[in-house]
Amino acid sequence: MFSQTAEYALRAMSWLALTPDDLVPTPLLAEKTRVPSNYLSKVLQQLAGAGLIVGRRGVGGGYRLARVARDITLIQVVNAVDKVERIESCPLGLSEHGTNLCPLHRISDNAAAAVIEILGGTTLQDLIDDKNASKPMCDTETLAKLTVSGRRS
Amino acid sequence: MFSQTAEYALRAMSWLALTPDDLVPTPLLAEKTRVPSNYLSKVLQQLAGAGLIVGRRGVGGGYRLARVARDITLIQVVNAVDKVERIESCPLGLSEHGTNLCPLHRISDNAAAAVIEILGGTTLQDLIDDKNASKPMCDTETLAKLTVSGRRS
Repeated sequence: MFSQTAEYALRAMSWLALTPDDLVPTPLLAEKTRVPSNYLSKVLQQLAGAGLIVGRRGVGGGYRLARVARDITLIQVVNAVDKVERIESCPLGLSEHGTNLCPLHRISDNAAAAVIEILGGTTLQDLIDDKNASKPMCDTETLAKLTVSGRRS
Repeated sequence: MFSQTAEYALRAMSWLALTPDDLVPTPLLAEKTRVPSNYLSKVLQQLAGAGLIVGRRGVGGGYRLARVARDITLIQVVNAVDKVERIESCPLGLSEHGTNLCPLHRISDNAAAAVIEILGGTTLQDLIDDKNASKPMCDTETLAKLTVSGRRS
């Protein structure tokens, strides 16, 4: 349902949440998230522009989360690249509908509200905290490496 | 949240539901839905391709719903132009995740399911049946004309 850009942004942010102590270079992030590197570069620029990640150029450079994973919700990630918006008033500008909305736009707004509630109620930390679930982007081998290097909480 | 194409498709279908006895020419439909005519033509072709509307060319031609408004849900309209899909298996193809999904894709799938439930539970008829609500695309003057010509249920 989400755009490819939103999906890629969520993947990148999930990986950065798994490796909070690292500056992750774009090529490595592209490999882990299985996103084309050029495409990912643009997504990362949008995420940096939204203040969700910070980058450092040059040797040893890369990206990391701008704040702890507990303080970043999925809706903030999606909104950085492909905004999910409530319908505040009639998109056709009909004054009789105004902020009441007709049934079409009321239902569309209900759908937007549901998505915002689900994604707004989940943080990046939630995605990696569940001990019984798999980790985003991780097969068993990848997960073992994260564990060995002490990066898993 | 939905693409512009999906929004335009929903507007066009709502208008056709309001005028079930008419073949509505594209220019008139463009005016009523406030959609650029060229853009709307392409949307209508997609809706016709999905079997939701039928058209007749030439003088007196236009489009009408392919079946009664009670039998067309909003998710069918959106899916005709911009499919909302559940996530059935790991988008990265990780065999360890498979159909169980990791928490990221589980949450994304929950959002898709919520949208499908809301839009799948609403028909075009539902949008125009509520006597206490405004009608999609209709200001008072437009609504009066629909009523006079006996097209309102």
